[in-house]
Amino acid sequence: MLNPADDSFADTLAAQLPPDSLRRTEPRHIEEPRGRWQGSSGWVALPRQTSEVATIVRACAKSKVGIVPYGGGTGLVGGQVAPKGAPLLLSLDRMTAIREIWPQENAMTVDAGAILVDVHAAAEGADRLFPLGLASQGSARIGGLLSTNAGGINTLRYGNARDLVLGLEAVLPDGQIWNGLKRLRKDNTGYDLRHLLIGAEGTLGVITAASLKLYPRPAAVGTAFFATPSPDTALGLLTLARSQLGDAIQAFELIHRQGLDFLAETLPDIRRPWSEPPDWCVLIEIGTGPGTDPAGLLETLFETALDNGLSEDGLIAQSEAQAQDFWTVREHIPEANRRIGAISSHDIALPLSAIPAFIPEATAALACIDRFRINCFGHLGDGNLHFNVFPVPGRTRADHADQSDAIKTCVHDLTHAMGGSVSAEHGIGRLKTGDLARYGDPAKLAAMRAIKGALDPHGIMNPGAVLPA
Amino acid sequence: MLNPADDSFADTLAAQLPPDSLRRTEPRHIEEPRGRWQGSSGWVALPRQTSEVATIVRACAKSKVGIVPYGGGTGLVGGQVAPKGAPLLLSLDRMTAIREIWPQENAMTVDAGAILVDVHAAAEGADRLFPLGLASQGSARIGGLLSTNAGGINTLRYGNARDLVLGLEAVLPDGQIWNGLKRLRKDNTGYDLRHLLIGAEGTLGVITAASLKLYPRPAAVGTAFFATPSPDTALGLLTLARSQLGDAIQAFELIHRQGLDFLAETLPDIRRPWSEPPDWCVLIEIGTGPGTDPAGLLETLFETALDNGLSEDGLIAQSEAQAQDFWTVREHIPEANRRIGAISSHDIALPLSAIPAFIPEATAALACIDRFRINCFGHLGDGNLHFNVFPVPGRTRADHADQSDAIKTCVHDLTHAMGGSVSAEHGIGRLKTGDLARYGDPAKLAAMRAIKGALDPHGIMNPGAVLPA
Repeated sequence: MLNPADDSFADTLAAQLPPDSLRRTEPRHIEEPRGRWQGSSGWVALPRQTSEVATIVRACAKSKVGIVPYGGGTGLVGGQVAPKGAPLLLSLDRMTAIREIWPQENAMTVDAGAILVDVHAAAEGADRLFPLGLASQGSARIGGLLSTNAGGINTLRYGNARDLVLGLEAVLPDGQIWNGLKRLRKDNTGYDLRHLLIGAEGTLGVITAASLKLYPRPAAVGTAFFATPSPDTALGLLTLARSQLGDAIQAFELIHRQGLDFLAETLPDIRRPWSEPPDWCVLIEIGTGPGTDPAGLLETLFETALDNGLSEDGLIAQSEAQAQDFWTVREHIPEANRRIGAISSHDIALPLSAIPAFIPEATAALACIDRFRINCFGHLGDGNLHFNVFPVPGRTRADHADQSDAIKTCVHDLTHAMGGSVSAEHGIGRLKTGDLARYGDPAKLAAMRAIKGALDPHGIMNPGAVLPA
Repeated sequence: MLNPADDSFADTLAAQLPPDSLRRTEPRHIEEPRGRWQGSSGWVALPRQTSEVATIVRACAKSKVGIVPYGGGTGLVGGQVAPKGAPLLLSLDRMTAIREIWPQENAMTVDAGAILVDVHAAAEGADRLFPLGLASQGSARIGGLLSTNAGGINTLRYGNARDLVLGLEAVLPDGQIWNGLKRLRKDNTGYDLRHLLIGAEGTLGVITAASLKLYPRPAAVGTAFFATPSPDTALGLLTLARSQLGDAIQAFELIHRQGLDFLAETLPDIRRPWSEPPDWCVLIEIGTGPGTDPAGLLETLFETALDNGLSEDGLIAQSEAQAQDFWTVREHIPEANRRIGAISSHDIALPLSAIPAFIPEATAALACIDRFRINCFGHLGDGNLHFNVFPVPGRTRADHADQSDAIKTCVHDLTHAMGGSVSAEHGIGRLKTGDLARYGDPAKLAAMRAIKGALDPHGIMNPGAVLPA
């Protein structure tokens, strides 16, 4: 049983830290992006350096006070939302340094509070690329992105957040600082704590800094929309693109007509690629080396795709502005969804070859519950679909409130049966702990509980997230 | 305190398994490649499927009998060598199936006992590449390669063994089977057990199968030797190659003249690239897409390198046979070393930018101990050097027996001081447990012990490896 971070605890902790290190939570600290969870207000600690994080964690460990690490607050599964019981919020807002960049090594070390776009800019300043990219990059912070093993649009080429990390610095639940900031490409000296903390959503410690992998910036980028008859042909297009373009494919995003219709309905100022959209389309981005012509490569791809019945219409961006327009379409689909109001949203991954069967089967299964609109879009190259369910015109999500559990179970059961994951890139947080218990492998769950118990015996780190007490 | 796998235990266990599942160890089971460790003879279990592995582990857990998982026996740090106390060897020799290949998904699932060259062949049969490559690939098995997070020659492009794994099946120390064979590119559902077991060297469970990532096979491959004045210019050449060739660089191997001289002395039939070798050279391999001319790309690279003083002489393979000759040189350096007889061998990694300073500093520090010959070679692209120390002509390693600890400490202290790793790709095993204790981060070591205690409370899994009791 944890103790609250009450005023008396806050006074004791404040005395161990520089002035102005503790404040009352602000409204932003207790909200989350979809407005479905409300955290409890209380105290937030704002350390300026790693040693202060260690002081805070040690104090909480001593007094058995829970800690909720807080990055940019952009998580979609409530991992950053303080539960009842008045835990202490630990915000990384003040730890934003780009500590050092080594361009020749393709490496940089940054504080956990650095915002993703600032990391992008610092890498670009050294003529390098940090390839993690996602919609919330203007506010998401590195510590949260690693704690949730964020995915996004470039994982097809560069991997998930965990694949972009050479080393970590973290404060473990007993307050010890682990200095694992080595920037080595090979280091086989014991268990990989780095990968254990990445994706643990703050339940095994607080990431305070990371050494990140950088990449050469592509000399040229090409962007195209290809209409395609079905998810099956979209997959065929992916296979064809891989055989022609190999590693150059940076993004391969599937979009259903429903998403474009939602855009037209809710954000009519956004320039859409087609006035009469196809049932399905993919947004492809390739990055190529010096002396290449990416638009030409995309034209060749389109010609082959046309010959093979994989695409009937293609739009290849002829300028950077047009490429940006294409991406604006993709990036505003979540906002259009928010305005329509989903009954249930699903962040799932499937083995690639299961996707053509999954989409019609899930659609048919949902039709047995009620009439819905389904916006299925996502990172097809990674097998990651956002399969989101909306009311038909004239009805609202409130009209379906009593069906939302059945919808979620319907989608997740089928995903699980087909060898998929019920959380592809968002994590478990507080939203999906029931799903983890339902679909998780029992041996894995037992091992997770044993590890949690061993590293955090009092359960102070992000209590209630991932593994409820 | 563990109990021995004595005849009585073997009888009890045999009764739970099909006939001929237990045998006495053969000589090969108690040897290791460099002949420096001798295991203890006893019983070896030879399961045919995962459920039998679980039966074996459960029986050992019940009777508190140690288990040493045994793959191909090629490990270089004694992790596969049974210590005193008569633990049970658990050999994966009979679990060699290629379970399934999904070419469209770029994925395959194999048993842990599959030999690496057989995995290569199966991938090639589906027109795909499994890129892990190293000298012992004709006998090393997937389970051991993953348990030690093997590196090798292609990590620059494709990563270490852990980066090539989508999912695992394993038997945990309590005998439970973890079915984690999902083949998903994104799956954020709890702690990453996969990465915890990979590199744990059999101390946290027995890997029984893996889902592996496959890649498109490069349409064309180019291979070249470039002479280069120094490690510093070799690094400049790597930076230049990356800017010109990006992801296409598959291998970038640094070789010192000493290695070529050892080859001439011990294996004179091997065709050497130069009759009068340069002080330093690099072996470069690139893999490129359809319609490319890798030899032409290497020629362009050489011309720029020549202009910039990064190389004074280059040999570009004009045929597959010549490329094979180049690789034969690289691959026989370890055998030449073995014939000369190293006093001390070091598998270290450094931040790339530290390498030009490290090599002369380490050489100078060793010269304070005695006169030696140093063969420094390795995977420069990964910062991974094999910095091996040999007697001068007329002396043998026996003459230096009392210096070998001082040599090792000298090299490892400097490596550690420069932010490096004292085990880049070989692991800890039983050889380097002292190094781990000496150089390991205390917070990490404490966390490792807590995890080991939580998952394997009786310490039955590979006792004495990585973390001595």
